Amino acid sequence: MENFVFQNATKLLFGSGQEKDTGSETAALGKKALLHYGGGSIKTTGLYDRVKASLEEAGVEVVELGGVKPNPLISLVREGIELCRTENVDVILAVGGGSVIDSAKAIAAGVYHDGDAWDFFTGKAEVTKTLPIGVVLTIPAAGSETSAGSVVTNEEGEYKRAFGHESLRPKFAILNPELTYTLPSYQTACGITDMSAHIFERYFTNSTHVDVTDRLCEGTLRSIIRHAHTVLDEPENYDARAEILYAGTIAHNDTLGVGRIGDWGSHDIEHEVSGIYDIAHGAGLAIIFPAWMKYVYKHDVERFAQFANRVWDIEIDLNDLEGTALAGIEQVENFFDSIGMPTRLSDVDIDDTHFEKMAAKAVENGPVGQFVKLEKEDVKRIYELAQ
Amino acid sequence: MENFVFQNATKLLFGSGQEKDTGSETAALGKKALLHYGGGSIKTTGLYDRVKASLEEAGVEVVELGGVKPNPLISLVREGIELCRTENVDVILAVGGGSVIDSAKAIAAGVYHDGDAWDFFTGKAEVTKTLPIGVVLTIPAAGSETSAGSVVTNEEGEYKRAFGHESLRPKFAILNPELTYTLPSYQTACGITDMSAHIFERYFTNSTHVDVTDRLCEGTLRSIIRHAHTVLDEPENYDARAEILYAGTIAHNDTLGVGRIGDWGSHDIEHEVSGIYDIAHGAGLAIIFPAWMKYVYKHDVERFAQFANRVWDIEIDLNDLEGTALAGIEQVENFFDSIGMPTRLSDVDIDDTHFEKMAAKAVENGPVGQFVKLEKEDVKRIYELAQ
Repeated sequence: MENFVFQNATKLLFGSGQEKDTGSETAALGKKALLHYGGGSIKTTGLYDRVKASLEEAGVEVVELGGVKPNPLISLVREGIELCRTENVDVILAVGGGSVIDSAKAIAAGVYHDGDAWDFFTGKAEVTKTLPIGVVLTIPAAGSETSAGSVVTNEEGEYKRAFGHESLRPKFAILNPELTYTLPSYQTACGITDMSAHIFERYFTNSTHVDVTDRLCEGTLRSIIRHAHTVLDEPENYDARAEILYAGTIAHNDTLGVGRIGDWGSHDIEHEVSGIYDIAHGAGLAIIFPAWMKYVYKHDVERFAQFANRVWDIEIDLNDLEGTALAGIEQVENFFDSIGMPTRLSDVDIDDTHFEKMAAKAVENGPVGQFVKLEKEDVKRIYELAQ
Repeated sequence: MENFVFQNATKLLFGSGQEKDTGSETAALGKKALLHYGGGSIKTTGLYDRVKASLEEAGVEVVELGGVKPNPLISLVREGIELCRTENVDVILAVGGGSVIDSAKAIAAGVYHDGDAWDFFTGKAEVTKTLPIGVVLTIPAAGSETSAGSVVTNEEGEYKRAFGHESLRPKFAILNPELTYTLPSYQTACGITDMSAHIFERYFTNSTHVDVTDRLCEGTLRSIIRHAHTVLDEPENYDARAEILYAGTIAHNDTLGVGRIGDWGSHDIEHEVSGIYDIAHGAGLAIIFPAWMKYVYKHDVERFAQFANRVWDIEIDLNDLEGTALAGIEQVENFFDSIGMPTRLSDVDIDDTHFEKMAAKAVENGPVGQFVKLEKEDVKRIYELAQ
């Protein structure tokens, strides 16, 4: 186990009706809130009205900025920063999924930064001070509601990059399974893929003696797999939605990842796909992860065999550990396919036109991944395996 | 899943050498610390000197109060409160195990309370303000290093009672597996029992649809069981000590317990044993839990069978689910026995003399337990089953 420092102070308010406390929780953080959201689905579901009413009741002044897109854009972040400055906003309330929260985080950090907010993503600037963030979550997927990280796309140059800072962990996060009822099947499946991928990234590690966290990862994955079809078949099944919602949160707040060095290569490789092509991050991960696994499993066949056995109930064949490992990888691909995800680039009409460029951009700052360090040629080979 | 609010802001510093930051972490909380500890083993191991040096280097003034006993006493708590007041202490540093931390928590709350600190334990007083607490942990067991609760014994009347308040969660907790190397086998085993019991208390619940947390509980238990004999056979095995140490912490900070109503009957029933007799809390739990399980398993045979299967690898016999459940309970008893714990009251020379009195005291404030609500006669029957 690696030495680690872990602190996750986000206050989780979980369950039916919890959004009633949005106003009081926000008021504890500031007097004037930037209400940040996406395409307006929160208006059709009535959540927008309930949140506004709760904020009003708590005496919180509101400035609004909607329009966050999946793969949130730095241009809107800049607009948000300007708005927070001119309106003297002192708290940001993100109502939506990971894109909205990630956008809110970039705004929260950018308000106190003299230069451009993109500087955080290129490593040119360090986060110093941030606005506090609260969250009402509508999409279980990114885990951004209790994580310290943010991923934003710069449309000039098609860069999709991540940055993080402990101060960006939301102060509170409201998670009501009912708010996820209206999430379309495809987005639900993308979220399931994303949270699974967050666990994979932590699970495939060179850190040894990480048995407790291995088992936390495996157990959470088993639960995600078990409930995935239920939420797709019965979108208003509260219990299954609740399991998926909690799983998505712990998948990415490092409860399962302490003491181990994660990989994150697949995320980097995927970002080049959804940075160029208009596909959901989750869909990209469903395509990249099985390919990545096929490319790297020989690095630690035992770990992949353990994964196959403990997560997918595949019997360990001690005379063919490689076969056991490969059977697990096959299950991953089958699972993503079964929930309606693409598992090949050809499924989303992406051909090899940009492989060279995507691979070059992925390794622009050096090799990606920790479990196996991948150079440009490796990344290209993974895109080819994903064809 | 039950609605829940969860926040655990304790900063965990985990791993080899982390106690070097004791001074700086304490200095962030206050200028004058009460250094609270137990019987002096920290002096023989050299930890005391290292902690003092770190505090001095960080410019923290120190007032000392040692002498905390297992099953910490309210009399020492009162002494600590007095000392904090007269010395204007503004932070408490607990160096030791659960007893030291629990004693520190009672002091931290008592300093700002006009009446007697025992009032918190009887429910006569509510916690208002508390001193911040830091921890350097030496015994993985109680989970008090990141929990909100405290258990203290009142020697007048032999009462052992618990209270808790969110503000009592330590601000930081330093967990270095090496600091547990010198822990004697018996105490190590008591700790393993205690952390297992914390998971049992959460696992046996009437809350339905708690699959994710079921699996987190099961996985953590499997890891505890797997490493228990290693830490007993090789006290200086860093890796195994690290697994047990992290397991003990998550077992009791509610990471595994959110969204479910725990039982806690066995803890209440055990407190009457170690409140009267001089036995370790862990040893008492090793005796009480198997008896409790035998008494209540029919209330939810399926849950006990799941426990037997997922934690103990007992095949589910659908024609004899009760047999499956009982086989799991037998494994619990065998496990405690295998790590050198008593599993019967007769093993620690306790006879039925005080059963009547203990049972009466256990239910003084009403029935104990949530999974099954136990009246006085039930509690007495459990003592009898534990004979």
